[in-house]
Amino acid sequence: MDDLAIAKQSTDTMYETDAAIHVLDISIEVTAVGQAEARFEVRAEMLNGFHVCHGGYLFTLADTAFAYACNSYNKKTLAAGASIEFLRAAKLGDHIVAIATERHRGHKTGFYDVVVSNQDGQEIALFRGRSHSTRDTLFT
Amino acid sequence: MDDLAIAKQSTDTMYETDAAIHVLDISIEVTAVGQAEARFEVRAEMLNGFHVCHGGYLFTLADTAFAYACNSYNKKTLAAGASIEFLRAAKLGDHIVAIATERHRGHKTGFYDVVVSNQDGQEIALFRGRSHSTRDTLFT
Amino acid sequence: MDDLAIAKQSTDTMYETDAAIHVLDISIEVTAVGQAEARFEVRAEMLNGFHVCHGGYLFTLADTAFAYACNSYNKKTLAAGASIEFLRAAKLGDHIVAIATERHRGHKTGFYDVVVSNQDGQEIALFRGRSHSTRDTLFT
Amino acid sequence: MDDLAIAKQSTDTMYETDAAIHVLDISIEVTAVGQAEARFEVRAEMLNGFHVCHGGYLFTLADTAFAYACNSYNKKTLAAGASIEFLRAAKLGDHIVAIATERHRGHKTGFYDVVVSNQDGQEIALFRGRSHSTRDTLFT
Repeated sequence: MDDLAIAKQSTDTMYETDAAIHVLDISIEVTAVGQAEARFEVRAEMLNGFHVCHGGYLFTLADTAFAYACNSYNKKTLAAGASIEFLRAAKLGDHIVAIATERHRGHKTGFYDVVVSNQDGQEIALFRGRSHSTRDTLFT
Repeated sequence: MDDLAIAKQSTDTMYETDAAIHVLDISIEVTAVGQAEARFEVRAEMLNGFHVCHGGYLFTLADTAFAYACNSYNKKTLAAGASIEFLRAAKLGDHIVAIATERHRGHKTGFYDVVVSNQDGQEIALFRGRSHSTRDTLFT
Repeated sequence: MDDLAIAKQSTDTMYETDAAIHVLDISIEVTAVGQAEARFEVRAEMLNGFHVCHGGYLFTLADTAFAYACNSYNKKTLAAGASIEFLRAAKLGDHIVAIATERHRGHKTGFYDVVVSNQDGQEIALFRGRSHSTRDTLFT
Repeated sequence: MDDLAIAKQSTDTMYETDAAIHVLDISIEVTAVGQAEARFEVRAEMLNGFHVCHGGYLFTLADTAFAYACNSYNKKTLAAGASIEFLRAAKLGDHIVAIATERHRGHKTGFYDVVVSNQDGQEIALFRGRSHSTRDTLFT
């Protein structure tokens, strides 16, 4: 298998049992090794008391893109930490995309930058995630 | 109204229309001005492909405690950014609590630390949020 | 004056009285509006108890590149916060460069990413800074 | 040796060869296992182009308190990353103290919060550091 095939197979393995992203109707695509895109639409039940998308859901979208990006090597890899900057509100019906790019991949620790944008190409949030890989594989 | 009454009224105003936390069955309590506790139980639909609670939901719980803590002054206040460190996995059925404490409140910017723990008192995550207050009130 | 001329003049104004970077022999260049590069050589007095460059000096180099990048609009702008990830040690005699790029510039708040590398092109640290602009100018 | 004696011996071992903190006249005290205090006075050469203490030096002070706190177990431990929020400027002649407290210590990773204050007890900065321990000892 080449790298991209391994990445796609890793994604499929995780996706199958990933209840969280099914509930949120997140679509996920691993575009290359170490890179992934996650998308959702802001639904009514994602709004907070200020009638905009709860930051927790934007984080979840970014975190999902990050998780699939860092797990594209067929090596079970965990999110160890992340930071997010909220730049602009996301509103009901907005189509949001989170694009994760690998910034550094060391022996065990990796860093991924995720940019979250809306359908007009406006940046909604900046996310940086830190991963920690284990010795387990995702598929055999 | 005294401070705590203002805090409780601020909470009630936000809570009423906060769809996101209703969907996740988050219970929220403002315990003092600048302090809040949020709780949920890890349900099947919160699990990720590794069969543990998706970090996005833990972030959402912490972010919710933070949001209610920083909005306890009857001044509409937005989350500007946050960081989270994941210390331990949360599992199906775990009862998770996020306790937010105010660390600093300046003219417009505030910092809040949130500790996320499970029913055994084990720390699950450490969160630090940064808020930005507006001139709007929550209630009149 | 065009943008780059304003950027260079902003730099010169700050540089003149910037004692901290003179003491560390940091050289600074604003390469475009919102972008700057800072360089130094690791000297004996920058080493910590493990005989590698103290992380504080690497932060200082990155923070300096960030400060000059966000001050390139002739608008006095302060560092409000930053995070740094240390990837690799810097050693005595290493030539270190910190390259700051603007990621987002809003009404008052800006975000800048800084990559710190050594003379072999190896990444030493990743830095993300958040700025807050004031109404003051740097020069008239 | 009891815990505090180990902590003090760890400190002494690092301090002896720690050029960086000697140059900045930082005094350091490990007050308990996992806790340390670092102090310095803001000198003219620490000022930046805005005539206040360069954030890099405040970071360095906090990072030093953090380094000594996480190295108090006679286990060589490295700074893996940190974030800092700048709350207030430090001025020429100010006496600054950074107090590091352990928040979590796992198998290899630790988290430490550092509060940086001036001589009037005003908080100057909030810092959170993440450490990574190795298998080496500091002294035998």
